[in-house]
Amino acid sequence: MAPSALADIYPIPARHYSKATTIQASVLHGAKDLRLETRTITDPAPNELQIAIKATGICGSDCSYYSKFRNGDLQACHPLSLGHESAGVVVAIGDAVTGFQIGDRVALEVGVPCDNCRSCQRGRYNLCPRMRFRSSAKSVPHFQGTLQERINHPAKWCYKVPPHVSLESAALLEPLSVAIHACRRASIEQGDTVIVFGAGTVGLLVAAMAKLSGATTVLIADLDSGRVNYALSNGFANKGYIVNPTKHLNDISEKFAAAKEIADDVMEIAGLHDPDFEGADITFDCTGKEICMQAGLYATRPGGQLIMVGMGTPIQTLPMSASHLKEVDIIGIFRYANTYPVGMKILSSGVLPSLDNMVTHRFKGLASAKEAFDLATKTADKEGKLVLKVLIET
Amino acid sequence: MAPSALADIYPIPARHYSKATTIQASVLHGAKDLRLETRTITDPAPNELQIAIKATGICGSDCSYYSKFRNGDLQACHPLSLGHESAGVVVAIGDAVTGFQIGDRVALEVGVPCDNCRSCQRGRYNLCPRMRFRSSAKSVPHFQGTLQERINHPAKWCYKVPPHVSLESAALLEPLSVAIHACRRASIEQGDTVIVFGAGTVGLLVAAMAKLSGATTVLIADLDSGRVNYALSNGFANKGYIVNPTKHLNDISEKFAAAKEIADDVMEIAGLHDPDFEGADITFDCTGKEICMQAGLYATRPGGQLIMVGMGTPIQTLPMSASHLKEVDIIGIFRYANTYPVGMKILSSGVLPSLDNMVTHRFKGLASAKEAFDLATKTADKEGKLVLKVLIET
Amino acid sequence: MAPSALADIYPIPARHYSKATTIQASVLHGAKDLRLETRTITDPAPNELQIAIKATGICGSDCSYYSKFRNGDLQACHPLSLGHESAGVVVAIGDAVTGFQIGDRVALEVGVPCDNCRSCQRGRYNLCPRMRFRSSAKSVPHFQGTLQERINHPAKWCYKVPPHVSLESAALLEPLSVAIHACRRASIEQGDTVIVFGAGTVGLLVAAMAKLSGATTVLIADLDSGRVNYALSNGFANKGYIVNPTKHLNDISEKFAAAKEIADDVMEIAGLHDPDFEGADITFDCTGKEICMQAGLYATRPGGQLIMVGMGTPIQTLPMSASHLKEVDIIGIFRYANTYPVGMKILSSGVLPSLDNMVTHRFKGLASAKEAFDLATKTADKEGKLVLKVLIET
Amino acid sequence: MAPSALADIYPIPARHYSKATTIQASVLHGAKDLRLETRTITDPAPNELQIAIKATGICGSDCSYYSKFRNGDLQACHPLSLGHESAGVVVAIGDAVTGFQIGDRVALEVGVPCDNCRSCQRGRYNLCPRMRFRSSAKSVPHFQGTLQERINHPAKWCYKVPPHVSLESAALLEPLSVAIHACRRASIEQGDTVIVFGAGTVGLLVAAMAKLSGATTVLIADLDSGRVNYALSNGFANKGYIVNPTKHLNDISEKFAAAKEIADDVMEIAGLHDPDFEGADITFDCTGKEICMQAGLYATRPGGQLIMVGMGTPIQTLPMSASHLKEVDIIGIFRYANTYPVGMKILSSGVLPSLDNMVTHRFKGLASAKEAFDLATKTADKEGKLVLKVLIET
Repeated sequence: MAPSALADIYPIPARHYSKATTIQASVLHGAKDLRLETRTITDPAPNELQIAIKATGICGSDCSYYSKFRNGDLQACHPLSLGHESAGVVVAIGDAVTGFQIGDRVALEVGVPCDNCRSCQRGRYNLCPRMRFRSSAKSVPHFQGTLQERINHPAKWCYKVPPHVSLESAALLEPLSVAIHACRRASIEQGDTVIVFGAGTVGLLVAAMAKLSGATTVLIADLDSGRVNYALSNGFANKGYIVNPTKHLNDISEKFAAAKEIADDVMEIAGLHDPDFEGADITFDCTGKEICMQAGLYATRPGGQLIMVGMGTPIQTLPMSASHLKEVDIIGIFRYANTYPVGMKILSSGVLPSLDNMVTHRFKGLASAKEAFDLATKTADKEGKLVLKVLIET
Repeated sequence: MAPSALADIYPIPARHYSKATTIQASVLHGAKDLRLETRTITDPAPNELQIAIKATGICGSDCSYYSKFRNGDLQACHPLSLGHESAGVVVAIGDAVTGFQIGDRVALEVGVPCDNCRSCQRGRYNLCPRMRFRSSAKSVPHFQGTLQERINHPAKWCYKVPPHVSLESAALLEPLSVAIHACRRASIEQGDTVIVFGAGTVGLLVAAMAKLSGATTVLIADLDSGRVNYALSNGFANKGYIVNPTKHLNDISEKFAAAKEIADDVMEIAGLHDPDFEGADITFDCTGKEICMQAGLYATRPGGQLIMVGMGTPIQTLPMSASHLKEVDIIGIFRYANTYPVGMKILSSGVLPSLDNMVTHRFKGLASAKEAFDLATKTADKEGKLVLKVLIET
Repeated sequence: MAPSALADIYPIPARHYSKATTIQASVLHGAKDLRLETRTITDPAPNELQIAIKATGICGSDCSYYSKFRNGDLQACHPLSLGHESAGVVVAIGDAVTGFQIGDRVALEVGVPCDNCRSCQRGRYNLCPRMRFRSSAKSVPHFQGTLQERINHPAKWCYKVPPHVSLESAALLEPLSVAIHACRRASIEQGDTVIVFGAGTVGLLVAAMAKLSGATTVLIADLDSGRVNYALSNGFANKGYIVNPTKHLNDISEKFAAAKEIADDVMEIAGLHDPDFEGADITFDCTGKEICMQAGLYATRPGGQLIMVGMGTPIQTLPMSASHLKEVDIIGIFRYANTYPVGMKILSSGVLPSLDNMVTHRFKGLASAKEAFDLATKTADKEGKLVLKVLIET
Repeated sequence: MAPSALADIYPIPARHYSKATTIQASVLHGAKDLRLETRTITDPAPNELQIAIKATGICGSDCSYYSKFRNGDLQACHPLSLGHESAGVVVAIGDAVTGFQIGDRVALEVGVPCDNCRSCQRGRYNLCPRMRFRSSAKSVPHFQGTLQERINHPAKWCYKVPPHVSLESAALLEPLSVAIHACRRASIEQGDTVIVFGAGTVGLLVAAMAKLSGATTVLIADLDSGRVNYALSNGFANKGYIVNPTKHLNDISEKFAAAKEIADDVMEIAGLHDPDFEGADITFDCTGKEICMQAGLYATRPGGQLIMVGMGTPIQTLPMSASHLKEVDIIGIFRYANTYPVGMKILSSGVLPSLDNMVTHRFKGLASAKEAFDLATKTADKEGKLVLKVLIET
C-alpha cells in the first residue's frame, strides 16, 4: 500500500480529542444549494462511536442529489448532508462499546439495517426494508451523510483500519464492497472470461475483484478511452474496448443493432484464439445503460450470468430470449452485505491495484465541497486530466 | 397411479414384433398441410433402439409449427414430423445396446446432445449448441418427431417405464422434465411461497413440483378459470387467481399499471395472514407473456427469484429496477437436463397428481393427427370441456 | 392440525394477567437432584416479552443433564432450569416492543446470539461463539431453561402461533427446526432417496422434512421396532429397517463388518427395483452412533451427502476412504438458524404428520418434572407403550 | 511462461511422422520389476488420436505401483505401463475426428468415463463407476499408462496446447486438475484464509489455485522445510509452517495432543493481527495423513470446510465433534472433472507460478524410467537438492 496523503494525521494521542458540542457540516438544501453550517452533536449513545470524519469519496448518487436534489425516484424533502464513502478517527466511545479506543482509525459502513427482519436474519441485510443509509433520502427524516466534522455511528458498523492502510483507501471500501458483493453473487470460477461494462470506480473495482477471484480474461469497456487505458495500465483489466458513441449509440436502423455490434466486438477480443469461445462466463454491467444490458445478454455464454451492478434505467427493453434460450441468469446487485471485514483483509493484503491511486483529485475541508462536486460530475478536469474518484479530506 | 387407457397394449410378447422396412408417418409440409405418408426405416444402429411409438402428447411448439410452419424464429425448411412428448415399446435392439429387451416399455428423451462440448461436459447438455431435438426445425436436416409408427433412437436416451406407470404418463415425462428442471434451478426451500403464472400443462406441473419440493403456498394464475379450477381441484396448487383480460390486459393508462394490479392481487392472496409478507419467494412465468414477467418482478420478495419457463415474447420491456433494488434474480429455463431418471422415480412413486388425468382428449392413430392439432390449439372443446393435454395414441 | 389438549387455555383475556414478582421454577442442582423452587422475576426489559410457559418438551440433552449434571463435555456448575422446546403466552411486554399484545400465543427460539460476530452477520447465528442457549451449561452464568412459570425473553426470538396450531406443536418447533436446518444443508432434490438412522423425535422429523422436500424414498432405521413402525404408520417414512443389536452391534470379527452389513441391507431395501441404484442420495445420522456414521458412508452414493445430525460420540473411527473415493461429503449440523418462521408456515399449512400425535406422554405442572424425566429416558412406559416425546404442560 | 526444455521438439512437420506398428513401452511386471518392451499398436479408432508421448510426470500412485505392484486396495494383476501426467504430439488421426491435425501438441486427460451413467450425465464423470483410467489397476484388463512411445486415445480427451505453453507444463495439467477441482468444490471466497497441509506437487498447486481464487492468506505446512521454503520463495503460498516430526508425531500423552498443537500453531500464524480470527475458512489436507485431518478439524473456523485431497489412510479416527459443533464440512476430492479446458486457460494466461520450474528432475527416454522412479520416491537427491516433480521425456 503506497504512503497516503493522510499518513500524517495519525496516531493522534487520545488526550488531543476534546468533547464537541457543535460541528461543521456541509448541507444540501436544494439543487446545487450546498451550505456550510454549524450543527450540534450529542455524546455517542451507549452502542455508538463518535467519529471525526477524515476522508469522504464522492459517489454518483451524491452528484445526483447535488444536481437535482433527487436520486432516481428518491426526492429529498429535508436538508441533507451528502457522503457515504468514508473513514475517520474515533474521538469518543459509547458506554457499552468494547474493542475500540480513542484514536482508532476506522472505516464506516454507513447503512444501518434493522437486525430484525427476515432479510437481516438471512444475512442479506442490504435488502432490509427498514435500512437507514447515510446520505440517502429514502428514510425520513433523512439519515445524514458523512460530510460533517463528526458523526455518531453504531460501533458495530465501524471497522478498524490497520496501520499500513490509508484512510483514503479505507473510504473506498464502500465502492469496493459493491464490487465484492457483485463478484460473490456472480460465483466466478478460476479461468473465467469476464466482461465489465463501465470503467468508473465501481467498474474498475469489479474488474479487479474478478481478476482476484480467478478470472484470467477480464475485458473492460467504456465510452471514455482515458478510463479504459487507466484500467489497462494499472492492472485492473487485461483487455479493453472503447465504445464508439457515434457508431454505437445512434444506430437505430435495426433493433438492438448497436448492442449486437458491441457484443460481437467484445466477444472477438475476449475470445481471441479460442475456437470454442461461446461468450463471457460472466458479464457485469456497471453503467446502468440499457444498451449495455442488451449487449451483455448477447455476449454471455450459454449458462453464464449477467450481473446488473450499475443502477440506471429503471425500465429496460431487453432481448429476453437470449436469457431464455441460453439460460443466462440476470442477477441484480443492490449495495452489499458482509463485505467490510473481507474488504479490509483484501486492502490490507495488498493484492489489489492501489486504491489511493484511484483518487485523482483531493479537496481539503468541507468548505471545498461545492468545488469538489462540480468536478466530480466531469470525466476530465480543466487540464484534461482524467477524473476518477474525487475525495474530500477533513 | 390410475389405470391407463394404454394398459392393455402391453406386455406384447417379443415374437409379435416383426422387422419393419416401411412405416407410416404424419408429416407436415407447410402451414396446416399435414399428410400421412409412408417412409422407409433402417435397422437400428449399434447404439440405438427401434421404438414403436404408442403415445405422443401435443405441445404448444407443435401447434405453432402446425399453424405457421414455424416456431418463433425457427422456420421449417423441409417436411417435418411433429411430436416430442412420447413413449413406446422396444421392437428392435442395436448390436451394442445392453440392458434392454424386446417389449420393454420406454419413455423417450428426444433431444440428442453432442456429448462433447463444454455444456455437455458440465452436465448442462440442454445448452449444447449441436443438440438435435426431434420435431424442431433448428437442426438441418430436421430431426424428425415421434408422430411416426416407429423410430430409431439412441438407447442412452430411452428410459424403461415400470409396469404400474402408464405410457401416457411416461409420454408426459417430457413436460414434467421442464417442470423438474425449472424447480431445480429455482432452489425452492421448504415453506416457500410460490406463484405460477400460466395453468397449461407446464404451469400445472411446475406448480405440482413446487409443492413436492416443499413449497407450502402455491398460487396458480391464468386467464382461463377452467384451468385454475382444475389446478385447485386436482391438487396442483392450493391457491388460485384468475386474470381478468378486460381489466388487466387493456389498462394502459399508466406504465405497468395492469402488471402492478395483478401483482398486488396475487400478493394479497398468497400472503394472507402474514403481516411480514414481502412477496413470493419464487415466481414462475409459464406463459411467455411480458405482462406476467412484469407482474412477477413486482410480486417477488427481496432476494427471491423469477423463473422464465414459458417461451414467448423474445423482446420484453421490464421494470428492471425491481430486479435491481430487490435483488430478484431472473433465471432462464430452456428445456431440461438429467431429469428423466428423476421424473420416472417421481411418476413411479405416485406422489404427483395423476398425469393420465391431465390428458383430456385422446385420438387414435396417426390419421387423426390433423383433428388432434385443431383441438390442441383451443382451451375448450365443442362441448365446452376443458382442453388440457391432447394425446395421439398409435 | 388436530385439536390440542392445550386448546382450552387460550385465549385468555389480557386483564387476567397480573404482574408477577415471584415464580415457580424446576431447578436441577446435581444429578437427579431436581427441585421445585420459588424465584423472583423482574419486569421484561424494553426489548423483551414476559412469557407464561405453557408447554415444554423434554429433549435428550435435558435427560443427560438430569442424569449426570453434564451433557457431553459440558459440566453444569450452577443450579440450572432445564427445558428449551417451549411455547407459551405473552403476559407482559417491554416498552420498546411492537407487534405483540398480551395473550399472544408464542413459540420460543431459546438461543440468543450476539447479532454482532461474523457468523451472525453471515446469517449462521447458530455458530455464534457468544450464543446464550437456555438450559445449556455452556454460558456461565447458565442461561436458565423454560421449566419455569414465566420467563423474560427477547421479543425478536418469539414467534406468534396461529390460532389453529396447538402450543404443543409450537413447542416442537424446536426439534422441527433441527430437521429443517438439516434438510436445508442437505440440499435434497426431488426424487431423492434418503436414509435416516434414528427414529427418535429428530429422526422422525428429519424423515418428514425430507419427504416434504421432494425425496420419494425415505427409509428410516432404528433399533426399536416400535419407533420404526410408528414412522411408517404415521407417514414419516415409506420404508423401514430395524437394526438388530445382537447381530449388528456385537459383530467385531472384521473391521466395520456390522456397518457394512447394515449398509447392504438398507441399500437393498431403498434401491429395490432400481438396477442402477448406487446408494442413498442423502443419509442422515440422527443417532450420534459411530456405527451409523460408518454405515452411512457405505450406503451413500458417489457424490452424495452424509449429514451428521445426532450429537453423540465425539471421537469416531470412520472409513474415510468412502468419503474420498466417492466424494461423499460429511455435513455437520449444529442446532439451526432462520428456521422458526419457516417452521411455523409448515406447521400452519398442515403438510406434516401431526406433531401433537408425537407427544406420547403429557405431565401437568412443574412438580411432575422429575417423573417426566424418569420416563423420558426410556423407550417404552410401564404398559409397554412407545415413549416418543414427553411434554410438561404448565 | 518460461521457455521449456521441450521447446525444440516442435513444430515437427507432419511428413516426419510415419505410421508405426510397433512401439517401445515401459512395463511393470511386479514390484520394482520394470521392463522396456516392444508392443504392437493399431491405427487409431475412428474417434481416436494417436499421440507420440513427449512428457510424463511421475505421481505418488505410480511410485506405489512401482514399489509394491499395488496402490492402496488395488492390486495389479497384469503387466502395467505406468504414467498418467502426460502430453504429446498428434501423429495419426481417426477417421471421425475433427479439429486436430498431425503435429498438434496435446495434453491428455487419461481417464475415459462411460458417458452414460448418472454421474457422467450430472457432469461428475470422475465418479463414473465404469471409468477407465490409464496406469490404474482398477479396470481389468488394466488401461495402460503413458510411459509408452505412442498411445491411441479418444480425441475428446485430448486438449490442444497453445504454442507458448511447454509440453512439460501441459503434462502437469493432471495434478493441476486435482487442484482446480479441489478449489472449486471448496467454494473459496475473496479474502479467505486457507491452510494447506502438504507441500508436494498437489499441495503446492492447491495453494496456488487458492490464491488465484481470491484467498489472501495461504499457509502451507509440511514436514520438509525445503518444500515449505520452495512454496514461499516461488509464490505458491504467503505463510509457511514446518511440522516437527519429533515433537508432533510422537506425542501420544493425550488424545490428539499433537494435532491440537499443530492446529494452534498454524492458527496463530494464519490469524496474526486478527483479534476475531476463529480459524481457517478452508483447510486442504494434501497429505492423506490422519493427524493432518485431525489438525484440520481443529484449525478450521465455524462454518468452514475441510477438503480431503490427499489419498492415504483409509480408516481414520477423527474428532468429529469439531465437525459437528462448528459445522465444518468434510469434502472428499477424487481426481477431477471438467478441469482441462480451464487448466489450459490458466496455464496459458501465465497467472500461476511456473510449472516448468516445479520439474526438479528430468530423465530422457523410457529406458531411464527405473532410475526416475527410484528418485521420485525421495524428497532430496544425492546432492541434497529438493525433489519435487520427476519427469520422463520421450
